Amino acid sequence: MITWSSDATRAKKAAQEAAIPTEWRIPFNKMPAQDVKDVTGYTTSCGILSEAELEIVQTEPGALLAKLASGELNSLTVTTAFCKGAAVAHQLTNCLTEILFDRALERAKEVDAAFVANGNKPIGILHGLPVSLKDQFQIQGVECNMGIASWIGYISEKDSVLVSILKEQGAVIHCRTNISQALMFGESDNFVYGRTDNPHNRTLSCGGSSGGEGALVALHGSPLGVGTDLGGSVRIPSAYNGLYGLRPTLHRFPYAGARNTLLGLEGIQSALGPITTSLAGISAFAQSVLAGEPWLRDPKSPEIPWRSEMARLEGLKGKDGKLRKPVFGVMSWDNVVMPHPPMRRALAMTVGAVIKAGYEVIGFEPLDVEKADKLAIDLYNSDSGEDLRRTFAPSGEPFHPMLIVYDGTKPLSVYDSWQLNVAKDEYRQRFLEHWNATKERTSTGLPIDGLILPPSVATAHRHGEWHFYIPYTSLFNLLDLPALVLPVGAKVDPVLDPVDSNFKPVSERDARIQATYHPELFANAPLTVQIVGRRYREEEVIGMAELVEAALRASK
Amino acid sequence: MITWSSDATRAKKAAQEAAIPTEWRIPFNKMPAQDVKDVTGYTTSCGILSEAELEIVQTEPGALLAKLASGELNSLTVTTAFCKGAAVAHQLTNCLTEILFDRALERAKEVDAAFVANGNKPIGILHGLPVSLKDQFQIQGVECNMGIASWIGYISEKDSVLVSILKEQGAVIHCRTNISQALMFGESDNFVYGRTDNPHNRTLSCGGSSGGEGALVALHGSPLGVGTDLGGSVRIPSAYNGLYGLRPTLHRFPYAGARNTLLGLEGIQSALGPITTSLAGISAFAQSVLAGEPWLRDPKSPEIPWRSEMARLEGLKGKDGKLRKPVFGVMSWDNVVMPHPPMRRALAMTVGAVIKAGYEVIGFEPLDVEKADKLAIDLYNSDSGEDLRRTFAPSGEPFHPMLIVYDGTKPLSVYDSWQLNVAKDEYRQRFLEHWNATKERTSTGLPIDGLILPPSVATAHRHGEWHFYIPYTSLFNLLDLPALVLPVGAKVDPVLDPVDSNFKPVSERDARIQATYHPELFANAPLTVQIVGRRYREEEVIGMAELVEAALRASK
Repeated sequence: MITWSSDATRAKKAAQEAAIPTEWRIPFNKMPAQDVKDVTGYTTSCGILSEAELEIVQTEPGALLAKLASGELNSLTVTTAFCKGAAVAHQLTNCLTEILFDRALERAKEVDAAFVANGNKPIGILHGLPVSLKDQFQIQGVECNMGIASWIGYISEKDSVLVSILKEQGAVIHCRTNISQALMFGESDNFVYGRTDNPHNRTLSCGGSSGGEGALVALHGSPLGVGTDLGGSVRIPSAYNGLYGLRPTLHRFPYAGARNTLLGLEGIQSALGPITTSLAGISAFAQSVLAGEPWLRDPKSPEIPWRSEMARLEGLKGKDGKLRKPVFGVMSWDNVVMPHPPMRRALAMTVGAVIKAGYEVIGFEPLDVEKADKLAIDLYNSDSGEDLRRTFAPSGEPFHPMLIVYDGTKPLSVYDSWQLNVAKDEYRQRFLEHWNATKERTSTGLPIDGLILPPSVATAHRHGEWHFYIPYTSLFNLLDLPALVLPVGAKVDPVLDPVDSNFKPVSERDARIQATYHPELFANAPLTVQIVGRRYREEEVIGMAELVEAALRASK
Repeated sequence: MITWSSDATRAKKAAQEAAIPTEWRIPFNKMPAQDVKDVTGYTTSCGILSEAELEIVQTEPGALLAKLASGELNSLTVTTAFCKGAAVAHQLTNCLTEILFDRALERAKEVDAAFVANGNKPIGILHGLPVSLKDQFQIQGVECNMGIASWIGYISEKDSVLVSILKEQGAVIHCRTNISQALMFGESDNFVYGRTDNPHNRTLSCGGSSGGEGALVALHGSPLGVGTDLGGSVRIPSAYNGLYGLRPTLHRFPYAGARNTLLGLEGIQSALGPITTSLAGISAFAQSVLAGEPWLRDPKSPEIPWRSEMARLEGLKGKDGKLRKPVFGVMSWDNVVMPHPPMRRALAMTVGAVIKAGYEVIGFEPLDVEKADKLAIDLYNSDSGEDLRRTFAPSGEPFHPMLIVYDGTKPLSVYDSWQLNVAKDEYRQRFLEHWNATKERTSTGLPIDGLILPPSVATAHRHGEWHFYIPYTSLFNLLDLPALVLPVGAKVDPVLDPVDSNFKPVSERDARIQATYHPELFANAPLTVQIVGRRYREEEVIGMAELVEAALRASK
C-alpha cells in the first residue's frame, strides 16, 4: 500500500467524504465485513435504494433511454437512483473522485422540464441519462485534479468538448471517477483519492487507469461511464469488472479540453471511450457523440458521422457484391505471454459459440508482439519521465511503485524519438498487410473482418501484483484500431479454471505471469473477450460484437 | 548558384540526358536564346509535337479523360504526346528527374488493350492518362533518390500505395519531377539534378519543393502531377506556375511507401496532392485515389470516401435546413508580411468577382500568424537538423544555402519538442473557435464556409532571392486544413502592378520582402488565389473553387 499524503490530499479526501449525503451512507450493520470479497449484492442489501430504484439501476442503458424518451421514467427519478447507487458503490470500493449529486439532481429537473417544453419529446439521444466521467473531463466550475496532488484546487474554466456534447444530448453528469496515478498503470490508485477495489472480489484490482468507472458501473452506480485508453485503460477495467468497453480509433470521439498527462506526445495517444453494461450503451454513446458533430469543435476529430448501415454490417459484401456474414480471425495468444486459464476458457467459449452459430473463423498468427510491446513502452517513455517529474514536483508527491518510467539518465534525442515513430509506422504497415493476407485463407477470398482475442493475460490481478504486461490491449493503441471488450457471461470458477499443470512457458516472464494465477484467489472475476476491427469502423465492431453476443447466448 | 557535384551526381545527370530520345531533342535553332524569359510558347514552336499532339497536351485533364473513356483518343496517342511535351519541358526548364518514357509507352499499349478487352470501356477513372510524380513516389524497379546524392542508386522494391492505386485507375506514369534539396525550401534546386526554372519567366523560380511538377505541367508536359506539401510545397509551385493545386487534409490521400526526409516527425507532416491545369483534374485525382480505398492499404488513411453531394455543395444548409450558398471570409494579409502588389490585385479581382456573383463575403482577421509561423519552423527543426545531417553525410553533399536548419548546438529535449505540439494544439483549438465565431457576422448566422487569401507573399521570386516567408501556406499545414490554389486568369503586368509607393511596412522583414518586388523583373508571373475549407472537406473546397472560378470568368 502507498502511504504518502499532504494537507491538501487529506483535505480533499475529507471534502469528498462530506459530499455524500448522510441518508445515503450505508449503515454500519449493512456494510460488508472486511473479509467479504464479493460486494456486488450490497447495492441491493444496503437498503438505500428502493425496489423501484434498484430496478432502474439494474436496467441496461438502451432500455433506460427508451423509457426516458417515452416519458415512462423521468430523469429526476433515474438520476436519484444512480446517485444513490454511486454513493453506495463508492462506500464499497472507493471508486469516485468528484461527487456531483446536487448538480446532477438540479440538472435532471431541467432536463425533465425541457422534455415537457419540447412537447414530451427527448432533447437528445442521451435524454435524462446519468453519465459518469473519468477524472479528466472538465466541467466548468468544478475541480479537476486527476488524482495528482499538485493539481488539487484547479477549477475548470470551461467544459471539455465531450462534456458539452453529452449535455446537449441530454446526459446528466453525476460524478467523476478514480484513476491510476498519471493514468499510467493497471491499478486505480493515486495519492489523492487512494485505491479502488474490484467489486466482484475486493482482493483484486478493478484495473486501470479508468478503474473507478469499472467499479462504479459494475456496481450499478452509473449506467454509462467515459474512460480513456492509452494502452488499455478503458478495456482493462472493462475486462476486470465484466463490462462492455470500447477503445475507438484515435480522435473519433473528441478529446479536446480534457486534462491529461504526457501532453504533446503524438507517437502514441489516448482515445476516449464508453464503459457500460450493454452494447446498446456503447452504441448510444457513439451515436450521441457523433450527433454532436465533434469535427466542428475539436480540430483533431475527423468528419465521420455515425454510419448505421455499417452498424448493421451492410458494408460486408462478397466478391459477388452480395451481403455476407463477417469472418473472424482468432489470436489465442500473442506468442509472448500466455493468458491465464480462465481467459483461455473465455476465448474458447466465444470461438465455440461463434463457430456453432455458423460463422467462419480462422487462426490469426501474432506479428512480432514482443517488438511492438517494446515500441509502445519506448513511446510512452520517450521523454524519459520528464513530464511526470515536472507534474509531481510542486507537491513532492512520489512516483507510485507501479509507475515505471525511465530515470532520465540517458534521455533520447528528438531524432531518436522520431525513429520510434518510423519503427511504429513500419509495424503498422506490416500489420495491415498481415491482416489483408488472411484473404488467402478465407472461403470468401477476402480478409477477415474482425479479430477475436483475450483483452488481457489476467481476468484481474491481486492488489499489488500487477503483471506489467499489456500488449493484449496496447497493440491496438500502437496500431490505432478500434477494440471492444464484452463479457462472455461467466466468471472465474476454481473447478472449471484450475492451474494449467501442462503449461510450458516460453520465457521467464511467461512463467512468472502464469504463476500469478491462483484459482481460489481469482474466484468470481468476470470473463471477457475482445473484438478488434478495421480502423475507424467502430460501427462494424459494434455490429460484430452483437453477433458474437447473440452466438454466446444461443450456445448456452 | 550551387556548384557541388560528385562522380555519382555527374553520372546520374548524364544518364538522365541520355534518356531523352534524339528525335525529341529541340534543334539548336529552335531553342530559346539564353535571355528569353518566357518559354511557354516553345512547346508549340519547337516542332517536336504534331498539331494533333499539341491539341492533346493543351487539353485539360477532365476533357482528356472523357475522350480516353469514350475511345475518341487512345492512351498511346495521348502518352506519346505528353512524353514529347515532357521531353521539351525538361530541355526548357530542367524539370525532370527520372525519365520513364519507354515504360510509359509500353504501359499505354497495355491500357489500350485492356480497354478493348473490357468491351471498349475504361479500366478506371484515370484511364490512359499520363501522370507525373514528384521524386518521392516509388515505382518498383526504378531508382528513387529524391535529389539526394547519397541516395543515388537506390532502386525501389515496390510501388508506393499511391502508385498502385493510380495504376489500377488506369494512369500511365511517364516521369518523375524535380524538387528542392530535402524538400525543404521554395526553390527547386538540388545537387543531383540542379535547378528548375519558371517557364513563364526563367529568371524566376518555379517554386518548391514540388517545383518540377509546376514547370512540367505549366509547359504541358503532363496533364496531372502529384506533389507533396509540408509547408506549401504543392501550393507554392501551383501559384508560381499559374496552376491548380490542392494540399488536402493529412492522410486523405495515401502517403504510405513514399520516400521522404524528416521521417518520424509527427508534429507537422507532409500531405500529397495534385498539381494540374483544371479543377476537373483536381477532382478526377481525388475521386480516383479514393476509389482505390486507401484506408485498406495505408494504416494512416481515414475511411472517408469521395462525397459527391459535398462536392455539389449540398452540405451547405441554412438554419432552416434549406440549401444555401457558401459564405466566404477574406484574409487580405496576415498582419505580418504584406503580399506583393500583383498578389493583392489577384485577391481583389477574386473578391470583387465573388461579390459581383452574389456571394456573401466578410473580413477574416488573422490569428497570431507570427507565432504560428515560429511554431511551424520550430516543428520542422525540432531535431536540430540531425535527420538531414545524417542523410547528407554519406556523400558529403553540403547544405543548400536556402536550407536553413539549426546547427544542433542547442538541441531540444524530447520533452521540449512535446511542448511544441501542446502549443500547436492550443493554436489549432483557438483557430477553430475563431473560425466558428464568424457566425456572429454572417447573414446566415453560421460560420464562413471557406477562406480566400493569397497563396504566397510573392507571385514568384527571382532565383536566389527567396524570401523565406511561407505562412500564407504553412499556416494550413499547422492547422491541417485543405487548401486549394487556383489561377485567376491574369499575369503580372508592370503597368497594372506598380510598386506600392504608399506601402508602410510593419517591420524590417515586411519592408525587406516588399522590396524584393520589381514589376519589370516579375513580369508574366501568373496570378493566383488560395481557398481554404474545413478539415477533411476536400470536396467542399473543390466545389467552392468551382464557384469562385465561375465568378472570375463571369466578371471578365
